Amino acid sequence: MSIGIGVIGAGVMGADHARIIREEISGAHLAMVADQDVGRAEAAAKGARTTTDPSALVYDHSVGAVLIASPDDTHFGLLKAALAAGKPVLCEKPLATKSEEALEIVRLEKRLGRSLVQTGYMRRFDPSYRAMKTTLAGGELGRARMLHCSHRNASAPPWFVGAMPVTNTLVHEIDICRWLLNDELIAVSAIPTKEKDPALFVFETAGGTVISVEVFMNATYGYHVQAEAVCSNGTVSLAEPTTQRLRINGSEQTSYPQNWIPRFADAYRIQNQKWVAAIANGTVAEGAATSWDGFAATFIAEQVLVALETRQRVEIKLPVA
Amino acid sequence: MSIGIGVIGAGVMGADHARIIREEISGAHLAMVADQDVGRAEAAAKGARTTTDPSALVYDHSVGAVLIASPDDTHFGLLKAALAAGKPVLCEKPLATKSEEALEIVRLEKRLGRSLVQTGYMRRFDPSYRAMKTTLAGGELGRARMLHCSHRNASAPPWFVGAMPVTNTLVHEIDICRWLLNDELIAVSAIPTKEKDPALFVFETAGGTVISVEVFMNATYGYHVQAEAVCSNGTVSLAEPTTQRLRINGSEQTSYPQNWIPRFADAYRIQNQKWVAAIANGTVAEGAATSWDGFAATFIAEQVLVALETRQRVEIKLPVA
Amino acid sequence: MSIGIGVIGAGVMGADHARIIREEISGAHLAMVADQDVGRAEAAAKGARTTTDPSALVYDHSVGAVLIASPDDTHFGLLKAALAAGKPVLCEKPLATKSEEALEIVRLEKRLGRSLVQTGYMRRFDPSYRAMKTTLAGGELGRARMLHCSHRNASAPPWFVGAMPVTNTLVHEIDICRWLLNDELIAVSAIPTKEKDPALFVFETAGGTVISVEVFMNATYGYHVQAEAVCSNGTVSLAEPTTQRLRINGSEQTSYPQNWIPRFADAYRIQNQKWVAAIANGTVAEGAATSWDGFAATFIAEQVLVALETRQRVEIKLPVA
Amino acid sequence: MSIGIGVIGAGVMGADHARIIREEISGAHLAMVADQDVGRAEAAAKGARTTTDPSALVYDHSVGAVLIASPDDTHFGLLKAALAAGKPVLCEKPLATKSEEALEIVRLEKRLGRSLVQTGYMRRFDPSYRAMKTTLAGGELGRARMLHCSHRNASAPPWFVGAMPVTNTLVHEIDICRWLLNDELIAVSAIPTKEKDPALFVFETAGGTVISVEVFMNATYGYHVQAEAVCSNGTVSLAEPTTQRLRINGSEQTSYPQNWIPRFADAYRIQNQKWVAAIANGTVAEGAATSWDGFAATFIAEQVLVALETRQRVEIKLPVA
Repeated sequence: MSIGIGVIGAGVMGADHARIIREEISGAHLAMVADQDVGRAEAAAKGARTTTDPSALVYDHSVGAVLIASPDDTHFGLLKAALAAGKPVLCEKPLATKSEEALEIVRLEKRLGRSLVQTGYMRRFDPSYRAMKTTLAGGELGRARMLHCSHRNASAPPWFVGAMPVTNTLVHEIDICRWLLNDELIAVSAIPTKEKDPALFVFETAGGTVISVEVFMNATYGYHVQAEAVCSNGTVSLAEPTTQRLRINGSEQTSYPQNWIPRFADAYRIQNQKWVAAIANGTVAEGAATSWDGFAATFIAEQVLVALETRQRVEIKLPVA
Repeated sequence: MSIGIGVIGAGVMGADHARIIREEISGAHLAMVADQDVGRAEAAAKGARTTTDPSALVYDHSVGAVLIASPDDTHFGLLKAALAAGKPVLCEKPLATKSEEALEIVRLEKRLGRSLVQTGYMRRFDPSYRAMKTTLAGGELGRARMLHCSHRNASAPPWFVGAMPVTNTLVHEIDICRWLLNDELIAVSAIPTKEKDPALFVFETAGGTVISVEVFMNATYGYHVQAEAVCSNGTVSLAEPTTQRLRINGSEQTSYPQNWIPRFADAYRIQNQKWVAAIANGTVAEGAATSWDGFAATFIAEQVLVALETRQRVEIKLPVA
Repeated sequence: MSIGIGVIGAGVMGADHARIIREEISGAHLAMVADQDVGRAEAAAKGARTTTDPSALVYDHSVGAVLIASPDDTHFGLLKAALAAGKPVLCEKPLATKSEEALEIVRLEKRLGRSLVQTGYMRRFDPSYRAMKTTLAGGELGRARMLHCSHRNASAPPWFVGAMPVTNTLVHEIDICRWLLNDELIAVSAIPTKEKDPALFVFETAGGTVISVEVFMNATYGYHVQAEAVCSNGTVSLAEPTTQRLRINGSEQTSYPQNWIPRFADAYRIQNQKWVAAIANGTVAEGAATSWDGFAATFIAEQVLVALETRQRVEIKLPVA
Repeated sequence: MSIGIGVIGAGVMGADHARIIREEISGAHLAMVADQDVGRAEAAAKGARTTTDPSALVYDHSVGAVLIASPDDTHFGLLKAALAAGKPVLCEKPLATKSEEALEIVRLEKRLGRSLVQTGYMRRFDPSYRAMKTTLAGGELGRARMLHCSHRNASAPPWFVGAMPVTNTLVHEIDICRWLLNDELIAVSAIPTKEKDPALFVFETAGGTVISVEVFMNATYGYHVQAEAVCSNGTVSLAEPTTQRLRINGSEQTSYPQNWIPRFADAYRIQNQKWVAAIANGTVAEGAATSWDGFAATFIAEQVLVALETRQRVEIKLPVA
């Protein structure tokens, strides 16, 4: 009953997904890896089959489900292929580079009448975010009136500028805020610093919650994600994972990872495990980002770009699916 | 060489100031307490002289310096009296209820050619804020690009509504941000939650720093003030004072005070001690809020109210003193 | 290539091991569950085969490896059976109730010339303990001169008295200290409090490290395990896992679990995963407790009991295997 | 009504005491400083009178109370002089270098029938230790069954060896344990590490509490003092004072001071303020270490030295005053 997984893309994330499937997941095995770079595909496959043609992977009989971790602009075409093949697919964020394309995926899936698409907003499976959501849903703290988020990368490559901090980084915050609050974002303002980085984004929700989000691509000290929900009866914030406490050189220290992979290692593993378990039930994992959620994040990011350019508060009006 | 201090107002803060002068300050003694309620004045005086006439206190020969802790709307008149008497004065914030009045105090003092007025923005003497300022000034972290502040009260009385969260609470944040960054605020946006409380205020500074400030008057869990400066090379935040760590009932706990007095007990003591020490040198304490700072906080708060009412970004243009 | 695991014992730990094998482990599946209580076996098996005869499980062809989680006094016999069948076995601690029996297992395994026995001291796979060991081995901190450990249970059942806090709880500390320090314990003193619980145990190692261990079976507030290594150039301590930080009711709180299962959920999963992965290589997991380690913990615990009874410092002399 | 304080000794602690008296204490002024080194005396006196003859200071009419901060072996003689002069005296620890001398001070004072001697165990005035004592006394946590203490210095001078870690450092722990628990120490064991530093000391109290104390003179990373009381219903530990939290260079950091003076700055100030306030009432500060407490710490330290030398558990039998 083991499901064969085909991983498309053998870059940093694709190779890590292949490793997770091989070494940490019950009920699945790595069936095939596709990458234009054969050597990279083979390094990730560790003995599983490889191909340079992602379509071949999608339609291969050994592949029961597809995991897309190739460059953003390939997502749209590969998702259409997976839907055409009727195979479950876990697609790394963003679902597509344009919201129109993402919406087309939503509609194609709807027409099929099956939940086949899971968007890889893995934070929803992070134990800290999950605990925060459970607490907020539990009601003890009352309504979340305000939510403060910060997303800090140690550093970003030189080409990670322009729209990218919004379309590739802020999208994570957009998705997790919608999910944590179970609410919809209806307006956004953007206030950049002199250096543009970090920038502050302020969202307002349909339910009347105000969200502040700092996105800092070059925070230097490490990869660091935080969220604090300020509720009627108290607050809840993430307890950031760390394994040891050092006392050395005049200070007590806990360390930050240098990128998101160690920070969200559990989230990726749990996401993939729950995806595999859900496939057997003909659906996507409970609480996972659907194709609609993937569309919404990309659509809202586009509105954020307008707010950033105009320096005006922009109202967000999601279309009907 | 002990300086006689006259305390005007024997309410919560006035009584505490009287106690600090009596019990914790070197080089000063409590000379007199003025309050319309004689019993309250005597309770705070603990044997020192009392009066129901604050003017009599200001001009009394035993009073070398005046500490104003009476209701806000009396500050303006009492400050003018103290300046007329040529006596050093420490005035609880706000310096005046209207910025025009505050500006008049600035100009009166300027005309006298002596630094006589210290505004009681005591946070400037809090060891945590002071350490943060020292760190920011030290340069190791680079420029403070963003500053996140939150001010939470356990609860506010029913009459503490309307403009008061801005004019009486946010003014603390306005002052401390100007002081921490050594920069001027030039624009403000205000985004209230559905319940109005908390509200988010976003300031922009002349130097290009973005400041987010949450003000929550009914946070329920305690009195809690935070600040984090996000700099080019790292961040610095307040380490909130606490004395013990309990492990009990399924959790590890540190406690919050129920109001500002325990939180800023050190700040009040140090402020008053440094004020007394500076008087002997014919000036105000180094780093203290001057009359100009007192004016600036009140002036900026007035602009914040405009932003809150219009929901527009408001540019702040401080007049010339 | 999936290994069939036979789980013996379907109590709390056995059922959890069965669940881990079913839901979280790559390369293995739950082949069979043995328990005298058929209903309990079936509840844990969730569709896998069951038996009331553990010997039948050990010799069943579908069972490639055995996981022993039955009562302590059955371990010895079941281990002998597994060795006789030549099957890899992961045995919950303690390896045996008497050190003579444990030593017999060591010798039987040695005679077979294969590493078949892994003792379930799962803490060795806990990310925090593992990080501490890596730090200690890295050398930056210099020699660990002292090690402070505490083991606190929220509460213990009424029958968990006498030797049990030593033979069933302290054994975890004995094993983890030996492993963390890569050193041998050579002497022990025991100092009980008036209530007997907690008690303090002081170990000395061959390398000259002093270890203090508090064992508290009824700490009430939660399950809490700590360790701090005090080294020549600094200290390292466990950063206890927690997912969220609440501010509520006058305090900031992080919670403790009520027992060891949530605290060591990752450790159990990783232990079992690495055991399964190692079986394919014909060995036990790297860094896992061997049969010798299982013997050593039980042997040392017996010396601790002597120290506790005589209130004398007892020298520990491990026999030659 | 200001009390003139005469400070004997103008070394590190004496100069700091002189500064505290001059700058931070209500109701007192620095009347005179005595030191054999005239320049050092004048540097500490900052304009107050100086002398090289401590007896002259004790008997000077301007000196209403004496603060002894000279070398340990001068304490006994100076205390006798102060008692002969009938003047209140605050003596830095240890009260005397030998317990016989300390006991003689106790008896001399008793004969005078007045509480004149306060021993400078300043930790009793540290807000953290005080909060812990209040919590323990409050009863919510139940009986303190175990107490874990650690005392770490960044480094000790080369001559700080032999008995000194016990007679000059451990005495602080002895005093604070007696005070926190309101209990008497009745036995001690000592277990040194290979390097002798740190060493572990285990005390047993009359009430059945077990105390573990680590003393580490060369912990390198900073000055760090901790205590955790493990009680029937939970634990309480010190929340170590710190002012800021840095995120820099891959880690979150809070800093340790390099010696005890910043760590206990509040404790010294509060101790001296309460001593001054108590003098007016003809007694010593409430909760302060009396001459008997000073004797007890030194007496017990002598028994610890026996335990350290013999490696035997030593019973402690305090004489009758």
